[in-house]
Amino acid sequence: MTRLQSPATFDERGFLLSARSKEGQFSTTDGARQWLLERRRDQRCDVHRVPLADLRGWHDEPQSGDLVHDSGHFFRVQGIRARSDFPLPLEFEQPIINQPEVGVLGILARRFDGVLHFLLQAKMEPGNVNLLQLSPTVQATRSNYTRVHGGARPRYLEFFSRRAGHRILVDQLQSEQGLFFIRKRNRNVIVETAADVPVHDDFHWLTLGQIKQLLREPHTVNMDTRTVIAAIPLVASAAEAEANGCLPRRGTATFADALLTSTLAPNHGCQTMDAILSWITEIRSAAEIDCQPCALASITGWTRDDRELRRADGRYFKVIGVSVASDAREVPRWTQPMVEPCAAGISAFVTKRIDGLLHFLVQARMEPGVWNLIELGPTVQYLPGTPLDEAQRPFMLDDVVSGAATTHHRSTQSEEGGRFYRYVTENIVIEIDESDDRPVPPQYTWVTLGQLNTLIQYGHYLNIEARSVLACLDVQAP
Amino acid sequence: MTRLQSPATFDERGFLLSARSKEGQFSTTDGARQWLLERRRDQRCDVHRVPLADLRGWHDEPQSGDLVHDSGHFFRVQGIRARSDFPLPLEFEQPIINQPEVGVLGILARRFDGVLHFLLQAKMEPGNVNLLQLSPTVQATRSNYTRVHGGARPRYLEFFSRRAGHRILVDQLQSEQGLFFIRKRNRNVIVETAADVPVHDDFHWLTLGQIKQLLREPHTVNMDTRTVIAAIPLVASAAEAEANGCLPRRGTATFADALLTSTLAPNHGCQTMDAILSWITEIRSAAEIDCQPCALASITGWTRDDRELRRADGRYFKVIGVSVASDAREVPRWTQPMVEPCAAGISAFVTKRIDGLLHFLVQARMEPGVWNLIELGPTVQYLPGTPLDEAQRPFMLDDVVSGAATTHHRSTQSEEGGRFYRYVTENIVIEIDESDDRPVPPQYTWVTLGQLNTLIQYGHYLNIEARSVLACLDVQAP
Repeated sequence: MTRLQSPATFDERGFLLSARSKEGQFSTTDGARQWLLERRRDQRCDVHRVPLADLRGWHDEPQSGDLVHDSGHFFRVQGIRARSDFPLPLEFEQPIINQPEVGVLGILARRFDGVLHFLLQAKMEPGNVNLLQLSPTVQATRSNYTRVHGGARPRYLEFFSRRAGHRILVDQLQSEQGLFFIRKRNRNVIVETAADVPVHDDFHWLTLGQIKQLLREPHTVNMDTRTVIAAIPLVASAAEAEANGCLPRRGTATFADALLTSTLAPNHGCQTMDAILSWITEIRSAAEIDCQPCALASITGWTRDDRELRRADGRYFKVIGVSVASDAREVPRWTQPMVEPCAAGISAFVTKRIDGLLHFLVQARMEPGVWNLIELGPTVQYLPGTPLDEAQRPFMLDDVVSGAATTHHRSTQSEEGGRFYRYVTENIVIEIDESDDRPVPPQYTWVTLGQLNTLIQYGHYLNIEARSVLACLDVQAP
Repeated sequence: MTRLQSPATFDERGFLLSARSKEGQFSTTDGARQWLLERRRDQRCDVHRVPLADLRGWHDEPQSGDLVHDSGHFFRVQGIRARSDFPLPLEFEQPIINQPEVGVLGILARRFDGVLHFLLQAKMEPGNVNLLQLSPTVQATRSNYTRVHGGARPRYLEFFSRRAGHRILVDQLQSEQGLFFIRKRNRNVIVETAADVPVHDDFHWLTLGQIKQLLREPHTVNMDTRTVIAAIPLVASAAEAEANGCLPRRGTATFADALLTSTLAPNHGCQTMDAILSWITEIRSAAEIDCQPCALASITGWTRDDRELRRADGRYFKVIGVSVASDAREVPRWTQPMVEPCAAGISAFVTKRIDGLLHFLVQARMEPGVWNLIELGPTVQYLPGTPLDEAQRPFMLDDVVSGAATTHHRSTQSEEGGRFYRYVTENIVIEIDESDDRPVPPQYTWVTLGQLNTLIQYGHYLNIEARSVLACLDVQAP
């Protein structure tokens, strides 16, 4: 008879060592930058707008007016009609992308000299600023990998479809932009292999530390990489932190140490995880939300001509057409509809020490396309075209943009370049003073990074905008 | 600067002490039985079938043929069309209940002489066998508590709508029967108060141990109480177990001690929680499932006459009408549609010691109405009318019904009596021999009770049938 033992706390995944590794086995970070620039130069691609009426392979479905692919695959642009009383009464109708397939966002990992490296791809996507950005090893919808489009099979897919002999480090279903996709979710997965991996020219091994450095630069690490990286807890135990020269403790620590301390506090925040789950349950229970998919032709306030689909007042976003030619994708030439926002967005986390422990301010947000209708977003999630009058001005937006608080991260990133045309978001992390005791509205609450990691792990709790900012958090020595 | 401390492990909620208390402060368990019998005798109620055509306040919606309430509230009977390839290819169409409101299933708790008691209600529901069963303190849809039906406000609702001054012990959103409800979920909540609580004649304070004893009896504790009780972890720490005279250890322990040991093993099972989440993610990602709500009039294979809605072959279930008269409900007299299954169901967990630690065999199940489309069910979830040919015979059904294995629990329970007419399910827990090493199909996996508790806590992982069986687990000394 064996007595129960306490849980193993030292995590063997080795994420922290990789995150603290500023240089990789195969290149310096500068070298990786150079490689990406070369790939951008070498891959010939051309993206230009075309009228919706000129899309080849796409048509308006007779009765609904939905924009659909002739094959019935890929995705459709349809309508959605939403009514919600959370946090304020709101009714709206809009076009939305329906892409029911679960995609795979898979990063292959391998240890070199004991340090985890991640295989990223220089991948062209038509909506990306810079076109080529660093994407996961495999970034494929089911239509991709079952080759509905008749193209080539994505490289390295076999590491994710046959798991035997490999080790799963991360494996989660996560939502995508709930204002633009209806119930879309992707599998976020990191697989570690010990096998020899032939590296194609468009791929490169990087440490987590190198990826974090590149995340400080604009339009370099794509959204699909960011969501997978966001699933990685910065540290698994105090022992792992200390073994990597960090000192997780409350109080006047560096921001990197404060992040690690907060990661190690899933149960010691200013509130328990039970209290956080109860807060979410109360909000999800009390909100009256009705979201109904509908025919694109039936929504009001939007006009469709041969060129594009847009709101009469020009707000929020348009649906446009693009034509793409590339020598580096599964299919050399295609046209497709894309969503083009009318301006840039902001996703920002406000952090604050509470009793010396770093907390993040999250907000519960209603978004018509997320599975639970309400997920948690960053403190400020400002969407292009949203009115900025007093009543609707996002809480703490001024703190985020004024630069008065300590800014720990600020970078300009592209949203997913396969569906969004140059949708740019400022990703920001600021820290306000511990003495700042402004009350927060009831749909906001302070949580530790360890609590955010736990919520991410169980899926459908943190939205993509929140995860994208969290991916940027860096724990490298200065 | 404070160094991190390890998490507080001794839980103060006191569920185990209550679960080990065979008698309550206010009555013996026999006394509680007597009280329920008296309530059954004193409450006059009459339920009888009526043709669908005779329902008052309900009508067939002109175009869809959906069965709807004249107010537009409560619920509607509509159609659903489902196609799935998991675990086997399957296409079907059926009627389904659409009840978009989140209901509250709330149990009020209070300590008497240091022991938690739970306030249950002897409540009549037209579909219950025995009509009156023990329900949560508050069991209300939004239509109930906003009094759309014009009736009285549910008693004790104020403890759940204003939480200040009370303590939340459990608070979760959970799914209901995914084969009969489309995306229905309820808030499962236990609130502890220190206030004086006036006790109405239809209410009674019971210890968790008394509720567990009554769960061994047929049709006594209703489904709504069972789902809330299922959210209670049997024990929070080894210290709590030992303080209650239990000895959590692997190996040849009593079944009660084995349950506590398994509860304390969220991280020590035959697989980690990470591995379980990855297994679920893989299944949810790979399955191709398409469930579309549709007009009731458009589904095939079902016939509707003035009397009822049924399948041509008589299988699965019918939609019937009932007329109810009661002197103890918010509204004294009403008619409504109900679902009547064609036979009894079985929900059974097979358990087994693995390395001396008790594990439960769960299966991933596709159900068209659950939010994630796939949740985990008990080992055997046999639904009335399902064909029993070799190919479709549920895995381990024979073990469960043969009586060859050790049976730890067997009781006959009613499903929710507000929507189901005499839908009876056998709830069974058996233990097979540790040496039984039959391989299990890929959609099944062995988990500890602690892992099940964690999955329950985050919501949308365990289905109602699994939770109902777990509610019956009992840790009282023989």
